[in-house]
Amino acid sequence: MDENPNKPTILVTNDDGITAPGIAALVEAVRPLANIIVVAPDAPQSGMGHAITVASPLRLDKVDIFEGIESYQSSGTPADCVKLAVANLLHHKPHMVVSGINHGSNSSINVIYSGTMSAAVEAGLEGIPAIGFSLLNFSHQADMAAAGAVARQVIMQMLQNLDSFPSPLLNVNIPNLPHAQIKGIKVCRQAKAKWAEKFDERIDPHGRKYFWLTGKWVNHDLDDDTDEWALSNGFVSVVPVQYDLTAYNHIQTLKNVNLSL
Amino acid sequence: MDENPNKPTILVTNDDGITAPGIAALVEAVRPLANIIVVAPDAPQSGMGHAITVASPLRLDKVDIFEGIESYQSSGTPADCVKLAVANLLHHKPHMVVSGINHGSNSSINVIYSGTMSAAVEAGLEGIPAIGFSLLNFSHQADMAAAGAVARQVIMQMLQNLDSFPSPLLNVNIPNLPHAQIKGIKVCRQAKAKWAEKFDERIDPHGRKYFWLTGKWVNHDLDDDTDEWALSNGFVSVVPVQYDLTAYNHIQTLKNVNLSL
Repeated sequence: MDENPNKPTILVTNDDGITAPGIAALVEAVRPLANIIVVAPDAPQSGMGHAITVASPLRLDKVDIFEGIESYQSSGTPADCVKLAVANLLHHKPHMVVSGINHGSNSSINVIYSGTMSAAVEAGLEGIPAIGFSLLNFSHQADMAAAGAVARQVIMQMLQNLDSFPSPLLNVNIPNLPHAQIKGIKVCRQAKAKWAEKFDERIDPHGRKYFWLTGKWVNHDLDDDTDEWALSNGFVSVVPVQYDLTAYNHIQTLKNVNLSL
Repeated sequence: MDENPNKPTILVTNDDGITAPGIAALVEAVRPLANIIVVAPDAPQSGMGHAITVASPLRLDKVDIFEGIESYQSSGTPADCVKLAVANLLHHKPHMVVSGINHGSNSSINVIYSGTMSAAVEAGLEGIPAIGFSLLNFSHQADMAAAGAVARQVIMQMLQNLDSFPSPLLNVNIPNLPHAQIKGIKVCRQAKAKWAEKFDERIDPHGRKYFWLTGKWVNHDLDDDTDEWALSNGFVSVVPVQYDLTAYNHIQTLKNVNLSL
C-alpha cells in the first residue's frame, strides 16, 4: 500500500463485519488523520471473544467499499484480521489499530466477550497502540455521528501523546446521546458487573428443542470510578486494558494450599 | 440429575469436543470424587477465546458416552456450555467446574485464546471454583495418564481448601512427561511470551488464495516465577487467574493525557 510518510498509518477493523455502519463511521473518523488500511471480517462476529482461526484456512479478499481506501474482507475473526494485516499486507506494524465502532456496549465484563476489543488486544500484544470503540446502541440503524466525532478526538489526542504513553490499549464506550449531550470523557476502571443469563427454550419445526441466550445486566458496583458509572451519567468511558490474567493477589493464598502430586 | 448430597457436584467441560480423549481422562479423574455432569461442545472449538453464541440458537442433546454419567453435547462454545449447564440442567451452581484436559498448552498468553480457560473463567464470573487443565501435547493420541493423575490431585486438594480459598480460578498446565518424571507443582504468574505469527499462503484447486495461521513461540521472560519456566523445568504450572482487564498502572498516565471532546 502507498503510505504518505508524513501521516501515521492506521489499521481499521471491527467485529460487526466490513459492511456494518459502525466501521464506515470509524473510517470517516480517521480519514483526515492517517493513511488507512481496512481489514475486517466478511460477516458479523459478535461475541467471538479472543478467537483465532487455527483449524481452518483463512480467506482474504480485496474489496472496494470505502472510497479511496485499500480494504480487505477476511473469513477470519477480528484477531485474525489484525494478524493478517500486519504479517501479509502492511509487512510492518501500523502506528495504531482502531476497532469498531461496535454496535452495542463493551463496557465492564463485556470486554472479555468482545471481538471488537480482541482486535485491539491482539494489536496490544504486538506493542501497537490500539483503541476499541463501542456505541451503547445495538441497532444496525444507530446514529453514529456523535460516536464518530468522539472517536476522531480520542484517536487524534492519543496519537499526539504517544511520547508520554507509547503503547496505549484502550476500551472506549460512548453513550447513545447526541454530541451536545455528552458531558465529557472519563478515565475509568472496568466495573464488576455481569450478565444474569437465561435461555429462551423453543421447539423447531422438526420437534427438536433449541435455546436462545438472553440475559439481564446486573451491576452492584456503583462507584464513580467505573465505566458503568461514567456511561450512565452521560460520559464517554475510557478504560486502559491489559492482558496479564494472573491474579497476583491470589498467588500467596494458593501457595498456602501446598499443592502436591 | 440425581446428586449424592455427601459428595460435591462437578461440571466437566472442554473445548476439544466431547469425544476428545482429554475430557474422558478428566471424567475418570473426578469420578471417585464427585457427582458429575458433563456438558461439552459437540465439535472441537480450539482457539475460540471467550466466545459466546448470541447470533444463533444453541442445541443441547443428551448423549451416552461416559458410563453412568449424565452427559450432554452442545452446539455452543465452552462458555455457552457452562451457562447452559448452570441455568438449564443443574438449576444451581455446581461446587466446581473443571475444563479439559486440553490437548496442547494454555500457558502464558495462550490463556486469552483458550476455549478451555474460557469455560473456567465463565464459571469464575459466577463465583464457582473452576480449574482448566492442559497437557503440553497437541496430539489426539497423547498419553493422558499422568495428566489425569495430576488433575485428580489438584481437584481433590482444592476441594479440601475451599474454606481458605473459596473461589479459586486456576490455569493448570502439565508437562508432557511420565508421572515419575514430573518434579512437582509450582504456583506461577503468566509469562510475558507470545506467538510470532506467519501465514502459510496456498492456492486452492479453483485458483483462489487461502492462508493457514502458523507461528513460532517466543519467550523473552525467563524469570523462575513464570509458568513457562515451571513447564520447561518439569513442573506442573498453576496460575491463579482473574478477569479484570483494567490496566490500573496506566490509569494515571491516561488521566495525564487530558482527553477531551
